Amino acid sequence: MNSGYLHSVSSIISHPLLEEYPALWASTQPPLRRLIMARDHHIFMHGDTASSLWLVISGWVKLIRQTPDGKESVVGLCTDGDMFGEAALFAHANYPYTAQVIGNDTELVAMPSATIRDMIAKDPSLSARIMALLNERTGQAQLKLEQQSTMSAAQRLGCFLIRLCQTQASGERLLRIPVEKHILASYLGMKPETLSRSQHQLKSVHVTVDGHEVMVNDIEKLRQFVCNSCSQSGSCDAEEALG
Amino acid sequence: MNSGYLHSVSSIISHPLLEEYPALWASTQPPLRRLIMARDHHIFMHGDTASSLWLVISGWVKLIRQTPDGKESVVGLCTDGDMFGEAALFAHANYPYTAQVIGNDTELVAMPSATIRDMIAKDPSLSARIMALLNERTGQAQLKLEQQSTMSAAQRLGCFLIRLCQTQASGERLLRIPVEKHILASYLGMKPETLSRSQHQLKSVHVTVDGHEVMVNDIEKLRQFVCNSCSQSGSCDAEEALG
Repeated sequence: MNSGYLHSVSSIISHPLLEEYPALWASTQPPLRRLIMARDHHIFMHGDTASSLWLVISGWVKLIRQTPDGKESVVGLCTDGDMFGEAALFAHANYPYTAQVIGNDTELVAMPSATIRDMIAKDPSLSARIMALLNERTGQAQLKLEQQSTMSAAQRLGCFLIRLCQTQASGERLLRIPVEKHILASYLGMKPETLSRSQHQLKSVHVTVDGHEVMVNDIEKLRQFVCNSCSQSGSCDAEEALG
Repeated sequence: MNSGYLHSVSSIISHPLLEEYPALWASTQPPLRRLIMARDHHIFMHGDTASSLWLVISGWVKLIRQTPDGKESVVGLCTDGDMFGEAALFAHANYPYTAQVIGNDTELVAMPSATIRDMIAKDPSLSARIMALLNERTGQAQLKLEQQSTMSAAQRLGCFLIRLCQTQASGERLLRIPVEKHILASYLGMKPETLSRSQHQLKSVHVTVDGHEVMVNDIEKLRQFVCNSCSQSGSCDAEEALG
């Protein structure tokens, strides 16, 4: 486990939580671990002791779970700036999913559970920031749940793409999404053939898919197609960029 | 708003968070408000300033949202022991849904936002407890999302009933669920006619529905029908009672 290349954290690492709380890594002995992991590497398994909180610096990680009767579901797809393994914030907790690298050379930072819990106990502003992150996470999961009934499959795929465009509100954007079709379909709560149909439908709003590359030719047009069927319209992270 | 009958908090109020942190209400001037609200009363509206964190002492509350194109979705159904309005934990936040009473004489406790944020800043153990609650909420939303693809509609209804049985692991239980069919269906992510079919299917595991009363004749049998298709099988709150 964690057999990726180990580096000490360098100053080039950029993640909102580390930028706001430089003491988070400065105070740790040994320093927070920076890891570069190859595709398919298992970061941790469902049920493992939650020993670290993880930040994605660059790349892609899938979070998966299995049911006793053998169904697998993708409960998360994490990329640049995302956090996973929040169970590490709590004593004696286990990870509630398996985390596996899906992008080549994915760069991660692991924050040891004991260190971060100690810092949270000492710094009320950090605990407030972490609570806000947890609350945001709940909001995202609830919204995804709601969108299963208020949005078409093509709109849900469009929403996923808008989030990847992050703060960019208009113009064009080329996205690289090295995620296999059945993984992305499971994450979006649809069958692979529905995902294919949805990709085709998005052509009408100038989105073209070529393998793992997705070209969003007109972000504003895609928003018009998607956001009218979303109760967060006007207040989601992606839309705040609109000001 | 909040036109329910106002009472000061009496010692008979029972909620885990209040039991663990009696100082939460003891320290507040004026005391935490205890409210008994009638059916259909709007507790707050989507977008209102999040001025209080709410606890359900007894009764039922629905949390709903609307999309710009007019679709309504039920994002939460809260009953005894549930918490809602977590946005109040954060400065300058708004409620991300409308909360409305659906059970007659629903008893609530409102914890003023400023008070609870002040206490969290002073008491690291309270902040850890609140973080754990927020994390649990995220886990529940993610699990519900996953169950949309791993479980049948009848299993999802069964899971909802098992949660209402709380810590009871076997034997029978009579549940009173004063929730209209279209509301419950929306919450469970299915159409009203699918909910009717699911109720019918649960007869085979000895669950009988009579209006708003649901008789679970054999909790263990219902668990066998439901939990094998759930990745949390063996570790969900309801199952911990099994020891």
